[in-house]
This record gives sequence, C-alpha cells and structure tokens, in this order.
Amino acid sequence: MTARIWTAALVVIGDEILSGRTQDKNVSQIATWLNVQGIRLREVRVVADDMDAIAQAVNALRARHDYLFTTGGIGPTHDDITVDAIAAALGVPVIVHPEARAILERYYVTRGGLTEARLRMARVPEGAALIPNEYSGAPGIRVGNLFIMAGVPHITAGMLAALTGQLEGGAPLLSRTIGCWVAESEIADLLGAAERAHEGCQIGSYPFFREGRTGANFVIRSVDRARLDACTEALTGALEAAGFAVTEGGI
Amino acid sequence: MTARIWTAALVVIGDEILSGRTQDKNVSQIATWLNVQGIRLREVRVVADDMDAIAQAVNALRARHDYLFTTGGIGPTHDDITVDAIAAALGVPVIVHPEARAILERYYVTRGGLTEARLRMARVPEGAALIPNEYSGAPGIRVGNLFIMAGVPHITAGMLAALTGQLEGGAPLLSRTIGCWVAESEIADLLGAAERAHEGCQIGSYPFFREGRTGANFVIRSVDRARLDACTEALTGALEAAGFAVTEGGI
Repeated sequence: MTARIWTAALVVIGDEILSGRTQDKNVSQIATWLNVQGIRLREVRVVADDMDAIAQAVNALRARHDYLFTTGGIGPTHDDITVDAIAAALGVPVIVHPEARAILERYYVTRGGLTEARLRMARVPEGAALIPNEYSGAPGIRVGNLFIMAGVPHITAGMLAALTGQLEGGAPLLSRTIGCWVAESEIADLLGAAERAHEGCQIGSYPFFREGRTGANFVIRSVDRARLDACTEALTGALEAAGFAVTEGGI
Repeated sequence: MTARIWTAALVVIGDEILSGRTQDKNVSQIATWLNVQGIRLREVRVVADDMDAIAQAVNALRARHDYLFTTGGIGPTHDDITVDAIAAALGVPVIVHPEARAILERYYVTRGGLTEARLRMARVPEGAALIPNEYSGAPGIRVGNLFIMAGVPHITAGMLAALTGQLEGGAPLLSRTIGCWVAESEIADLLGAAERAHEGCQIGSYPFFREGRTGANFVIRSVDRARLDACTEALTGALEAAGFAVTEGGI
C-alpha cells in the first residue's frame, strides 16, 4: 500500500460560477477523467476573473500537486485574463504561439478572418505547448505541470480526450456502491467498524430522502480490488444481518 | 463607489465531490443567496474529508472574508469530521450543545431514540450557536463568522432560509443580461470599450453553441442601478449598430 499516489488540483476561473449564474460542470467531469488516469483530484478552488486571485491559487497549488488544471478565461474577450495571470504567476512573458496562430488562421479562413481579438487566443506563457481543441479552434495550453483548459464544458471534454493516456498516473481508485433504505444514523457504528476492519478501504456514507423515505448509499473505495471486494461483502453482510436489504450498485 | 463591500468564502467538504460521484449544487445556491444578502462570494475551495485539509482551508479563508461558510460532513457517520476539524482550526474543544441535544432528543422520539451516533450531530465547537434545520433535526452551527452547513442541498437551503436577513451586508451586485447570436470574438473590442466607458460596471461574456449556431450572453454587473442601465443600453446600442439583434434577458 505504499505505491505512489499521483495527485492533481483544479482552479475554476470565473465570476459566472461565483455569482451563481452558471452551474459548474467541470469539477465533476475532470474528477471522473482524472480517476481513470490514475490521478486523484485533491483540491479545487473557484476564483474570480482577477489577476491576483488566479496567480495566488495557481502558485499555491502547482507546487503541491503533480498536476494542476485550470478551466475558464481563455477566450477572446477583455474578461479572459487567465493566460496573463498564469504567465505572471510563473514569472514568464506572454508570447504568441506560432502553431496556435496557424491553427486560428486556418480555423477563421471561412469565419471572417483572424482579427486582433481572435489572435488573443494564440497567446500563451513562454515555454508552453498546445492541447488540441477539436471543437472551436482555440487550443488549450500546457506549461510544465499546468494544463490550461476551456471553461465551456464540451470544449473542456474535447481537450481532456486529447490528453487521455498522456499523463503518468498510478493505480486508479476503485469503488463500489451499495444502497439501503435506512437512516445512516441507525447503522453509523456498523459503517465505522467495517472501515476500521478493512485496511486500505474508505467508506463514504451519502444519505438521501426520496419518495418519502430515508435511504443512504455507501461508497467503498480502494486501489486494491481484493480489499475492495472483501470490504463490500463484509459491509453487505453486516447490513443484512442488521435487517436491511442491500441493493448492489446503490439506490 | 467607496461603499464597503462585504465578502464571503465557501469551503465544500467532501470526497464525493472530488471523486466526481456527486455534482455539487451548493456553490450556486449559496452564491445566489449571498448576493441577495448584499454579500459577494469571492472564493470557493473544495477539500477532502481530511482534518488537515479542512482546517487549513478554514483558517486561510475565515481571516480573509467577512463570512465563511462550509457545507458537508456534519452527519452522524465516521466520515463526518467537519466539527472536529473546525474546532481544531479554531483551537477550541468540541462540546455537546445542550439545545442541539434537546432538539435531537425530540426529533428521534418517534424514530428509534437518540443513539450515540445521532448524538454526534449535537457536537459543536465551544462557543457556537445553532442554525435551525427544519427538515432533519440536526442543526447547522454558527461560530464567530463561520457558518457550518449541511451538504445535502435541500437541507442547506433550509438553513439558508433560517439565516435570511440575519447577516449584515452591503449593496447587492445588480446584473442585467443581454444575448446575441454572434461569436464573441467578432465583438470583443466593442465589449471591452463598453466596459472601459462605464466606471463601476463589469461585463462578462459567456459564449455558447446551440441549435447549430454560435451565440453569447453578456452579463453586465454593478452595484449602481443607473450605471448598470446606462452600460446595458450603450452596449445594446453598439451591438445593434454593428448589425446584431439583441435579446433582453439573454438567449
């Protein structure tokens, strides 16, 4: 159980998330994708479209994790300041990336040409490489352990697809879910005992109220398939012995 | 424009958010609620069910903002460690709050009685007051400028309702939204110019691709109604002069 754990953090950049106007979708999709790559998402920060706030979050997190992702603020408008803020955080100048410029020139040939505003999307921190964007031309940016991604979820998804299998990771965290129509407070001791008895496993308890009834799903997580299965079976047995029917896969 | 701005931060506590299993709903609902109270949500951190991670985030943010909210980790099970982590962050002991105990005793009279596990939900950092929970008995917790809330969104909503009008705030940030079927890169200069010409206003540009067409919504924000209206009208006029039909309220 001393295998190296690879970790990542995410900085979500955008006044639209902090104002409540837009429901973020990127935390969940990046978390799910990272887990498949064998990388754990350990922390997320949501910050405003503000140079200092972005730079502080980026500098705090890039040193602490193997990988740091950002979403948002890489479009053509005045409120898109992510590249400038990250270049400032890294202490490098912003340059126009020749390949990004060429991509945008091709993309906008039939769309009114590459204007000054559109050329903003070819700007990168010096030393950066590009992440392909199959949907809208403007690429994502990789610089060191930092991955600068779009904020619009389907474009982010395309960039993640381009990165799939490219990042070194460790064993993915496996999980199984079981569900019961029970108030979690009724079986709290049993849950804690099951976790203590199974080293290398964590059990999360997620209560809900649905169809007028109280229930909970229990998510068992481990990097080790055998331990995961043993813990899940032990917990299932304990819940059934206490008189509760267990639904494999959760309710 | 030198009126005091009241700010808040939010710490979302939960492995289930960082694993991608659960889509967070609290950032958006707390942000929206705070704005009505005249308080700006300035930063969010999502951290794991980990004592140190919670304590670090809480201590970093509670000093920097007028108010700090947390969601998640206040249930009866072994993975609910928010109260312990926050008490450690504040350097105070955890006590059983007599009123919380009485609330839980009443709530569980018809539900199997107040067990040891359920009594965990009466534990608070010393010096705390309670936030009513109309749905499931277990109260939220207020200690200093810190508001410790449930993670289940409808319970969080009930706790927010109980706090409505109780927190001192300033002028709420007002906003208006207009939308156009236009690629934001086509009118980026016009947006930047409108923002520069209207002090005390910010313009956010939120592109989308829908029904096979490219569009964008523009959100104008200000604490001053007259400035907001002037900026919105100027931007609408500029977009229409450039040949784009503008939809009030956004597309």
